[in-house]
Amino acid sequence: MIKNAQVDRKPKVLILTGSANDLSKLEEAFSFLEEMGVEYVKDISSAHRNPEKTITYAKSAKEEGIEVIIAAAGLAANLPGVIAAHTTIPVIGIPLATGPLSGLDALLSIVQMPKGTPVATVGIDGAKNAAILACQILAIKYEEIGEKLKKYKETLKGDPKK
Amino acid sequence: MIKNAQVDRKPKVLILTGSANDLSKLEEAFSFLEEMGVEYVKDISSAHRNPEKTITYAKSAKEEGIEVIIAAAGLAANLPGVIAAHTTIPVIGIPLATGPLSGLDALLSIVQMPKGTPVATVGIDGAKNAAILACQILAIKYEEIGEKLKKYKETLKGDPKK
Amino acid sequence: MIKNAQVDRKPKVLILTGSANDLSKLEEAFSFLEEMGVEYVKDISSAHRNPEKTITYAKSAKEEGIEVIIAAAGLAANLPGVIAAHTTIPVIGIPLATGPLSGLDALLSIVQMPKGTPVATVGIDGAKNAAILACQILAIKYEEIGEKLKKYKETLKGDPKK
Amino acid sequence: MIKNAQVDRKPKVLILTGSANDLSKLEEAFSFLEEMGVEYVKDISSAHRNPEKTITYAKSAKEEGIEVIIAAAGLAANLPGVIAAHTTIPVIGIPLATGPLSGLDALLSIVQMPKGTPVATVGIDGAKNAAILACQILAIKYEEIGEKLKKYKETLKGDPKK
Amino acid sequence: MIKNAQVDRKPKVLILTGSANDLSKLEEAFSFLEEMGVEYVKDISSAHRNPEKTITYAKSAKEEGIEVIIAAAGLAANLPGVIAAHTTIPVIGIPLATGPLSGLDALLSIVQMPKGTPVATVGIDGAKNAAILACQILAIKYEEIGEKLKKYKETLKGDPKK
Amino acid sequence: MIKNAQVDRKPKVLILTGSANDLSKLEEAFSFLEEMGVEYVKDISSAHRNPEKTITYAKSAKEEGIEVIIAAAGLAANLPGVIAAHTTIPVIGIPLATGPLSGLDALLSIVQMPKGTPVATVGIDGAKNAAILACQILAIKYEEIGEKLKKYKETLKGDPKK
Amino acid sequence: MIKNAQVDRKPKVLILTGSANDLSKLEEAFSFLEEMGVEYVKDISSAHRNPEKTITYAKSAKEEGIEVIIAAAGLAANLPGVIAAHTTIPVIGIPLATGPLSGLDALLSIVQMPKGTPVATVGIDGAKNAAILACQILAIKYEEIGEKLKKYKETLKGDPKK
Amino acid sequence: MIKNAQVDRKPKVLILTGSANDLSKLEEAFSFLEEMGVEYVKDISSAHRNPEKTITYAKSAKEEGIEVIIAAAGLAANLPGVIAAHTTIPVIGIPLATGPLSGLDALLSIVQMPKGTPVATVGIDGAKNAAILACQILAIKYEEIGEKLKKYKETLKGDPKK
Repeated sequence: MIKNAQVDRKPKVLILTGSANDLSKLEEAFSFLEEMGVEYVKDISSAHRNPEKTITYAKSAKEEGIEVIIAAAGLAANLPGVIAAHTTIPVIGIPLATGPLSGLDALLSIVQMPKGTPVATVGIDGAKNAAILACQILAIKYEEIGEKLKKYKETLKGDPKK
Repeated sequence: MIKNAQVDRKPKVLILTGSANDLSKLEEAFSFLEEMGVEYVKDISSAHRNPEKTITYAKSAKEEGIEVIIAAAGLAANLPGVIAAHTTIPVIGIPLATGPLSGLDALLSIVQMPKGTPVATVGIDGAKNAAILACQILAIKYEEIGEKLKKYKETLKGDPKK
Repeated sequence: MIKNAQVDRKPKVLILTGSANDLSKLEEAFSFLEEMGVEYVKDISSAHRNPEKTITYAKSAKEEGIEVIIAAAGLAANLPGVIAAHTTIPVIGIPLATGPLSGLDALLSIVQMPKGTPVATVGIDGAKNAAILACQILAIKYEEIGEKLKKYKETLKGDPKK
Repeated sequence: MIKNAQVDRKPKVLILTGSANDLSKLEEAFSFLEEMGVEYVKDISSAHRNPEKTITYAKSAKEEGIEVIIAAAGLAANLPGVIAAHTTIPVIGIPLATGPLSGLDALLSIVQMPKGTPVATVGIDGAKNAAILACQILAIKYEEIGEKLKKYKETLKGDPKK
Repeated sequence: MIKNAQVDRKPKVLILTGSANDLSKLEEAFSFLEEMGVEYVKDISSAHRNPEKTITYAKSAKEEGIEVIIAAAGLAANLPGVIAAHTTIPVIGIPLATGPLSGLDALLSIVQMPKGTPVATVGIDGAKNAAILACQILAIKYEEIGEKLKKYKETLKGDPKK
Repeated sequence: MIKNAQVDRKPKVLILTGSANDLSKLEEAFSFLEEMGVEYVKDISSAHRNPEKTITYAKSAKEEGIEVIIAAAGLAANLPGVIAAHTTIPVIGIPLATGPLSGLDALLSIVQMPKGTPVATVGIDGAKNAAILACQILAIKYEEIGEKLKKYKETLKGDPKK
Repeated sequence: MIKNAQVDRKPKVLILTGSANDLSKLEEAFSFLEEMGVEYVKDISSAHRNPEKTITYAKSAKEEGIEVIIAAAGLAANLPGVIAAHTTIPVIGIPLATGPLSGLDALLSIVQMPKGTPVATVGIDGAKNAAILACQILAIKYEEIGEKLKKYKETLKGDPKK
Repeated sequence: MIKNAQVDRKPKVLILTGSANDLSKLEEAFSFLEEMGVEYVKDISSAHRNPEKTITYAKSAKEEGIEVIIAAAGLAANLPGVIAAHTTIPVIGIPLATGPLSGLDALLSIVQMPKGTPVATVGIDGAKNAAILACQILAIKYEEIGEKLKKYKETLKGDPKK
């Protein structure tokens, strides 16, 4: 049997979004990770306006100890794909409902990745689910996150408003 | 620093699809996992025709040592969501282009999960990317899979036909 | 000729929805059933957050005397399909316009069921029509419901605002 | 307890389609009803080319002993809605994938019925599911159809190709 | 050369809509016809709630002197098609943006008519264009309407706000 | 009462399409007009490749005796709209299913005309319906066309394959 | 090496929109061109209501010294295509989110141009990007515009709100 | 008046596509550029599989004398956007109809670029139009290309098959 690792205080999740305007759409992701005790780093880094910064994040993530990247973007949402092109860390993409097409453009721009560079896509404006998925991924290594997830899952049953 | 675990011979990936007709669409997933040396179990288990079997798979997966589940389905594709409802293991969903709507129905049925139970969705008929994503997830725990992924990523650059 | 059965006071319709937030969207269903004198039970039971409860409802419905189930859900609306997987009672699905895609996701997730497990789908946010359909189904057995439906249909002609 | 009626040999299901070209798309409905021992009448009756015939069918169905109507149509599929306008019998609508829009037009034309006249819509080209749904509806009155449906549901589990 | 007829005071255009709620969406049609001096009759007549009334309108229109029918409907908009099924008078259909799909359902339900019964479809919520089209049709017979249309067309050039 | 005009041998319908490749899609329009005894002129005239020719057709149509124009186009189908901009004759638009979007692009490009210049749009690839609509329009002036249309409508009832 | 030309004070960009209502949607285009020091002419000229004016603009643009045309339109957006039909100057099309379909109609009406007359399409309501693209095009001839663009691009990196 | 530059033999257009499989879809672009006497360079360079190569192309294009870039991609088509992020040269994007969504995914992924980095998008599979647009852009600097374009435009009028 494989002994699972322990969670330390180094950030394990990197959360990037293309625009400061989108930060508020990610609040539920931040609070869920905090609830699960998972450290994260967040920043604004556009694939189109600041590609170098984005690529640097993607390339250095692994050696910085990042184990999962969450990238949120609207419209022709290239951010998750650009990051996935520069790393082998799992990239979770959140399509944002920005603009007149209600996020359908972002969804297709993120999920329809060509062979070789997947992006784990969640629903439109699905910040909370992105955070849960990040924890599920981390939980295959860090048992205590798995324990917390199990408890969280239990709470879902009791709360009809969720 | 966290010491990564070693890969043993127990299956770590469970691949389910709702219909025997869809198995051929998953060939690239099977061969990629084999290429990466990742053991997997595959079976046909419909969320609608055989829900008990599906739920049993979902519930027992963790204790069987499964660490990632891949679920493929077309049309009103409930399979990935039903599995995700019964486990905290990361579930990767593959929407299949079955029927007249070319998989758009399956895509929306899989990716638009409500808060609490994410499905990591890949593109329509994206079996290979599902397998790559599964390996990326496993690689946060199993260093050697990460090494193989890095090599695979290098090969992408050289092969313009991929 | 077949003698039709009489309506007793046991609930014949079970109405489930995945979230307490959606209850207000079902008000017209409740009031129509009351208008027709059809007893019903309603509850919140998510296919994803509380699958066991949902399955228990589906499996025990028949022996509880339930003859039609109405299930409402938004987004990747699995609720009607999950219920239909566990019973042979007719299941009426109501796609809810929750989220940025205005219910198109829920419509496709409900109506595009694979062979073997149909869901009788009504329009997006079509709670009233779901209740009417439930009564139409019950009316093949309970003549008095059929009589009331006929009268209701007559009123439609006179009220241009309906 | 309500005693269920017995199935006699009078047709209980009326199946209409707008065009002779669509008959082949309904084969699975015919054979399923036969498998269940449910008598049916089928005819071609277009809502647009032969509205009088269609309306006559709708209006006289009940007194002819018909208890469920299945109506299939493609494109601007008015047939199910026109029938539902003239009867209180449950109407099951099958959107057909005729023409360049792959049945999306027919689906919306059938499912999005206004308040007052529901159509129980199944998936695009979902003839078999329409027949199963018809049987599920009849089964609330005819116990032996319910018994056969239960057996059919059991067979679904064992046949991964269905 | 063909001598054109003179416009008398008998209503030449019949405008029907399925719901009193939609009347306000037709205001521009009414005022344009008045501007052109074309008499019209308007009424509420649903294809689904009051099919007999609708069919009576369609069947008697010609002998009542009606030469063009305008029919507006939302959702599964059957009204224009039902009317067209019962008359050879040109029927202009206006898809209304009622409900969550913004009129795309009504557009497809109206425009995608099968061979044999066309509906002259204008844009979503296109009441004014329906009235203009009605006048263009009448103008092939009534020269003075043609004259007024020409003047109207001239005014379009000068008014950038139109 | 208004005396209807008699049909002479001058062409009353002008049929334009943007590309020689599309002519075969219009065959049913040609044969229907011939069946009705309505003279027509047909030509290829692209709104984009040969705008002058197109505009000349639109501007001179009326004085040439043309009373209805049918314009067919695929993709960003501007032809009907461009013609409508230059005449007050009724313009019937046929969206053609050319290219990967199956005519949805052409449909929206034709039907969604802004206020002031309507196009009477028929279904995708709806050449026959365009011809029928043209005859319905002409019939308000030419009684004998109306008579023929009535007979044609009768034949629809008898032919289930139409 | 080719010597680049110098920017003079003659307007190089012509900006047309079909309706005065749309002018406010173009503000960002005007201000960007001003920021870049590029002279422009703007006017309202509908392809449908004032086709002659539109064509005159298109035909005379080149000899007036115009080097790029920006055309914005909503719904069945013919304006950019009509202009492109009458000139060989590059035409940039801006689909506007006017009406219930949120600009999807305008996007397809502009971008799906047939072979021979391209329109350089930007995103829905993408006025600013249209202006940037116009400058990028001019910059291949006017070096100083290229210099300003480079500086502008630098500012993008520093401003996360853009 | 500004003297236009002369065309030399250095490649002015760079054409990139993400996959060798897509090269055949670009044949018309190659032949049109050759017909116009415009030198070009073509290569396969995926934004996802070989991002470094792609970025190098984008960054060095200007100093290599490239004045317009054409980038073609299918699915979640990031290539044009990634290139546009790294250069101020005009980038023309061609969405390719690869995969089950017929290029709608690629269209939205390319055209819906956020503010700051436009891509001049042509229609789905619009290789020829991309080449024409490239020439139109070059023609603002190179008069002889403009002359050839004018002649090409004349030929369009005469050839109804184009």
